Amino acid sequence: MTTALIILGAGMGTRMNSDMPKVLHQIAGAPMLVHAMKAGAALNPEHTVVIAGHGAAEVEKAAKAYDPDATIVLQSEQLGTAHAVAQAREALSSFDGDAIVLYGDTPFISPETLAAMTAARLTHDVVVLGFEADVTERYGRLITKDDQLDRIVEFKDATDEERSVTLCNSGVITANSKALFDLIDAVGNDNAAEEFYLTDIVGIARARGLSATVVRCDESETLGINSRAELSRAEALYQSRARANAQNDGVTLSAPETVFFAHDTFIGRDTVIEPNVVFGPGVTVETGATIRAFSHLEGCHVSRGAIVGPYARLRPGAELAEDVKVGNFVEIKNAQVHEGAKVNHLSYIGDATIGARANIGAGTITCNYDGFFKHKTTIGPDAFIGSNTMLVAPVEVGAEAMTGSGSIITRDVPAGDLALARARQENKAGLAVRLFDRLRALKAKGK
Amino acid sequence: MTTALIILGAGMGTRMNSDMPKVLHQIAGAPMLVHAMKAGAALNPEHTVVIAGHGAAEVEKAAKAYDPDATIVLQSEQLGTAHAVAQAREALSSFDGDAIVLYGDTPFISPETLAAMTAARLTHDVVVLGFEADVTERYGRLITKDDQLDRIVEFKDATDEERSVTLCNSGVITANSKALFDLIDAVGNDNAAEEFYLTDIVGIARARGLSATVVRCDESETLGINSRAELSRAEALYQSRARANAQNDGVTLSAPETVFFAHDTFIGRDTVIEPNVVFGPGVTVETGATIRAFSHLEGCHVSRGAIVGPYARLRPGAELAEDVKVGNFVEIKNAQVHEGAKVNHLSYIGDATIGARANIGAGTITCNYDGFFKHKTTIGPDAFIGSNTMLVAPVEVGAEAMTGSGSIITRDVPAGDLALARARQENKAGLAVRLFDRLRALKAKGK
Amino acid sequence: MTTALIILGAGMGTRMNSDMPKVLHQIAGAPMLVHAMKAGAALNPEHTVVIAGHGAAEVEKAAKAYDPDATIVLQSEQLGTAHAVAQAREALSSFDGDAIVLYGDTPFISPETLAAMTAARLTHDVVVLGFEADVTERYGRLITKDDQLDRIVEFKDATDEERSVTLCNSGVITANSKALFDLIDAVGNDNAAEEFYLTDIVGIARARGLSATVVRCDESETLGINSRAELSRAEALYQSRARANAQNDGVTLSAPETVFFAHDTFIGRDTVIEPNVVFGPGVTVETGATIRAFSHLEGCHVSRGAIVGPYARLRPGAELAEDVKVGNFVEIKNAQVHEGAKVNHLSYIGDATIGARANIGAGTITCNYDGFFKHKTTIGPDAFIGSNTMLVAPVEVGAEAMTGSGSIITRDVPAGDLALARARQENKAGLAVRLFDRLRALKAKGK
Repeated sequence: MTTALIILGAGMGTRMNSDMPKVLHQIAGAPMLVHAMKAGAALNPEHTVVIAGHGAAEVEKAAKAYDPDATIVLQSEQLGTAHAVAQAREALSSFDGDAIVLYGDTPFISPETLAAMTAARLTHDVVVLGFEADVTERYGRLITKDDQLDRIVEFKDATDEERSVTLCNSGVITANSKALFDLIDAVGNDNAAEEFYLTDIVGIARARGLSATVVRCDESETLGINSRAELSRAEALYQSRARANAQNDGVTLSAPETVFFAHDTFIGRDTVIEPNVVFGPGVTVETGATIRAFSHLEGCHVSRGAIVGPYARLRPGAELAEDVKVGNFVEIKNAQVHEGAKVNHLSYIGDATIGARANIGAGTITCNYDGFFKHKTTIGPDAFIGSNTMLVAPVEVGAEAMTGSGSIITRDVPAGDLALARARQENKAGLAVRLFDRLRALKAKGK
Repeated sequence: MTTALIILGAGMGTRMNSDMPKVLHQIAGAPMLVHAMKAGAALNPEHTVVIAGHGAAEVEKAAKAYDPDATIVLQSEQLGTAHAVAQAREALSSFDGDAIVLYGDTPFISPETLAAMTAARLTHDVVVLGFEADVTERYGRLITKDDQLDRIVEFKDATDEERSVTLCNSGVITANSKALFDLIDAVGNDNAAEEFYLTDIVGIARARGLSATVVRCDESETLGINSRAELSRAEALYQSRARANAQNDGVTLSAPETVFFAHDTFIGRDTVIEPNVVFGPGVTVETGATIRAFSHLEGCHVSRGAIVGPYARLRPGAELAEDVKVGNFVEIKNAQVHEGAKVNHLSYIGDATIGARANIGAGTITCNYDGFFKHKTTIGPDAFIGSNTMLVAPVEVGAEAMTGSGSIITRDVPAGDLALARARQENKAGLAVRLFDRLRALKAKGK
Repeated sequence: MTTALIILGAGMGTRMNSDMPKVLHQIAGAPMLVHAMKAGAALNPEHTVVIAGHGAAEVEKAAKAYDPDATIVLQSEQLGTAHAVAQAREALSSFDGDAIVLYGDTPFISPETLAAMTAARLTHDVVVLGFEADVTERYGRLITKDDQLDRIVEFKDATDEERSVTLCNSGVITANSKALFDLIDAVGNDNAAEEFYLTDIVGIARARGLSATVVRCDESETLGINSRAELSRAEALYQSRARANAQNDGVTLSAPETVFFAHDTFIGRDTVIEPNVVFGPGVTVETGATIRAFSHLEGCHVSRGAIVGPYARLRPGAELAEDVKVGNFVEIKNAQVHEGAKVNHLSYIGDATIGARANIGAGTITCNYDGFFKHKTTIGPDAFIGSNTMLVAPVEVGAEAMTGSGSIITRDVPAGDLALARARQENKAGLAVRLFDRLRALKAKGK
């Protein structure tokens, strides 16, 4: 069965108290919308239609960044969930598979749950995702009758008997695409909010003799985000699962509650992660590496046996080969650091290649930017870069070459050469004491 | 009605196990005493009298730092709460408004609660603040009779029936100032501890035909701090409220439990705060800024659209204009950084002005201190400061001027000029390899 | 009574999902095995025998690092706990005191508990450590009869009646060494797992007319670690106790949950520790110091009144005297920093001595490494090291000497002298503007 995703992302999210569209608020370094798209992607959909409204241009940008093939449809007025889904009709006009309705603010639906819904479609015309709620207040209820889902009742319209039902509506729904739009045509807005509710299609389907059923999932999967407090609770839930998964995969986290993963972090077995480490998107750490305290990694690759931190910052494009050491107060960006090289202290390495076993002294800076362009620094294997060397890119230091501490390297250094750019030291006898005396006298006068 | 605050702060706080007076231990970057003074300040008091004892000089200093008009009175012996309040008599001898007794170790009384007590004074002579305790052990009980507060019974003197009362005494009390001192005159110390208890005044007042009543507050407001464990729990309570408030105000906190606010932090809407950020006192962050992970801010102002961190330290007097970027391992102190300027890596900017759109290279240092005096650095708009430039203050770099990497700038650089202070690079052919060989041989011999 | 420890550490720890032997996984900076050894050390044992198996070489190394006198015995096949203990027979062949069996994955047994077991040996032949379990699933049960411990029943072999007993077996057991090995000889492996269970010796002892009893401890002491999730929970338990102890000792922890101690951290009274501080092994902080946020300390000594951080990294051998200040983005390693000296910003001080009251400017680096050897830097009292000074070791700067900012110091600076090594500044008129123009034009062309 081919599938199309219809992801609702037009809502304003008033309770977020934000100028940013709700579905772009992030969890684990990705917009909620992208989490919903990733969940749906497990179904290998033929079409992905995102319904945007509030902040549609930004929503489109984020959706396309994740899936360039996604179709973004504008819902200029927000007249209810059925109205939102109806906006996808044209985009899916030539599609005759199943459509599944997901929500850009409901990021945690699992692939297993979606697969169960797809499976249930083999036997039923309409499949709704439900959950047993701990606290049922305000949720719509799924009313079953004779082994069929009979209807969905909004909480405020429910009778006491209906409210006593604990099976609640997640809003996620799937049906044949054509059938779905047909059912939506019949939905009215004769209710207090004058909105067109997608939930009404179940009753309509049953009245037309179509079959309907419920697939159940854990309540935590259907968590919807409506405020920043809920957003941070969802983040906490995501993180606590990610930490437990990492531990199960053989990663040591001595203080798991202080380690923050992104949605796509991969950490290998027997890697040790010390307290207070933050992973931004795009990080892969191989087996048996050590990520020390207070490190921050984004968009980088750390190989087997590498030691990173404490206080190391790896930015996008940092690639550390095996047994590389990156120490404290070091920033690495867009740089290949080859096997066994060391950058131990207070350095900025950007737009560079560092050869195997090279030793980069404390305070080294690749001067990669001239205010307009970025330039590249190349350091050969076994090179020894003295402390506080300025490497004015574009520049190349050869294999087994050396630079004296404090040198400003503006020209290439051939392999095996020693480059110096250094003024001669002069000791001016007694001058420090005389300077101190003068300053001390000035200070005394000033008081 | 005019009000005078009498804040008790003489206690030694034995359980704090500290040489520092108890009321000076801090919550959210301010002494507990200051929290109590801030709470009372909501009543716009005519007088603030702080009763100091243990460490009185330090207490006086802290109290005056917050409110230079506060009167500090020494209670040389600690003979009980009534005795403590009595020390304020002379300071308030010409005052005829209401006096309210607060506690320097009870930092969380809300302005609303104090306003309710003031209102209750319109109808009653004595007003006591009470709370329903979750666990009532050890608290004094408020015994009511015929719609009046009849008396306060210390827990250890209470009958079983009195102990069954769950309305407990916070110690906070208000009455007309003259009346309060008159009632205190009648308090005796005929009890096991031989102390004069302020609580006795309620019974005395009732016996004299005065009226008394209770205003209730939430137990968390009356939290008293007696140990460092309780102090850290109070801090945690403060922080969790501050985080929730920030979220409600539209601030994104992805890991709120890792962000620490000071008592006076202000953060604008749609600002994003990443994990592990610490705010010291005196910070204002405008709308739509980003404070990245591992940043530390004190006494600074961050404008709209600015990006700070990760690993940025903003110290007192740092003022970042709109769209400024301060990157990793950068310290900014007493410096105005104008619109769109960038200080991205490993720099120390102190006592400086940085012009709009200026780019400050990695490793730049304002050499602002000569061991005796601090001097100022001025950088013009659109200037380009090369990496590892030493700006030996006082010094000025003009607009659109440039400094070469590694330059030591001791004289002003006129606008549009390029300043270089750099030794010529020499490449000594083969010398690195010969040096390595010699060191390798020495090393081999040493083993 | 003399004592010998037999510590079982041969297990593979399959659920750890690790190539590292289970008992080498760390809590509070020390392998679990070392925690067990430290617990046993409170008995002042004559012999310590560690039974190693999986990863025996690494286990031996860790055990000997803590106690060079420990005997490591290889259990090449793991045939059960009785079989493991039997491996110690030869090592203890000439010993006739008590042997106590401990576990390398059970790190929290207290000295008091072990003392109670030793005391119980005065009256009983075999003493077993038991605990009342909250959730008794899967634990062996201690079955008592007539004031004696009668037998230990594995959970899976227990009857319903036996399972209703809540007194559970910790596995820790003590008896006279000779008696213990005699009893073990009688243990068979006629069970489902075909293992020799140490627990069987109780029944055997009783059958032989020996006496046996139970000493009880809190369940938390007997916590065994079998997975990384359990490891991090044990770490959390350790940390929460260490934090509470520090607070009781008069240490201020404003956010205790963000401070991580090692197993041997010592912090003096009235020291303030800000949020997000990590202590590695070997740290002593005296009274009244301040450890600011985001600091990382290992193997160092911080004296009274010193201020460390934020973002300070003290590595092994850092010794800070009284009132020293170490500021942000500063790394100190193997260095004595004398009274009142300051290293405030962005510096690396390694293999050095810094005199009293010396001021080390921002960006200073001790160039201590030539790729093969480490060399020493000595700075005299009251010296003033200008910003970004490179101290090319071995080198000595005398008392009250000064170095100009940006100087590369390769020769000693006598006391009172001013050393400069600095190129002359040239301002090239209008060149910056011309450069900008050229780059701007290139950039425009490129687009």
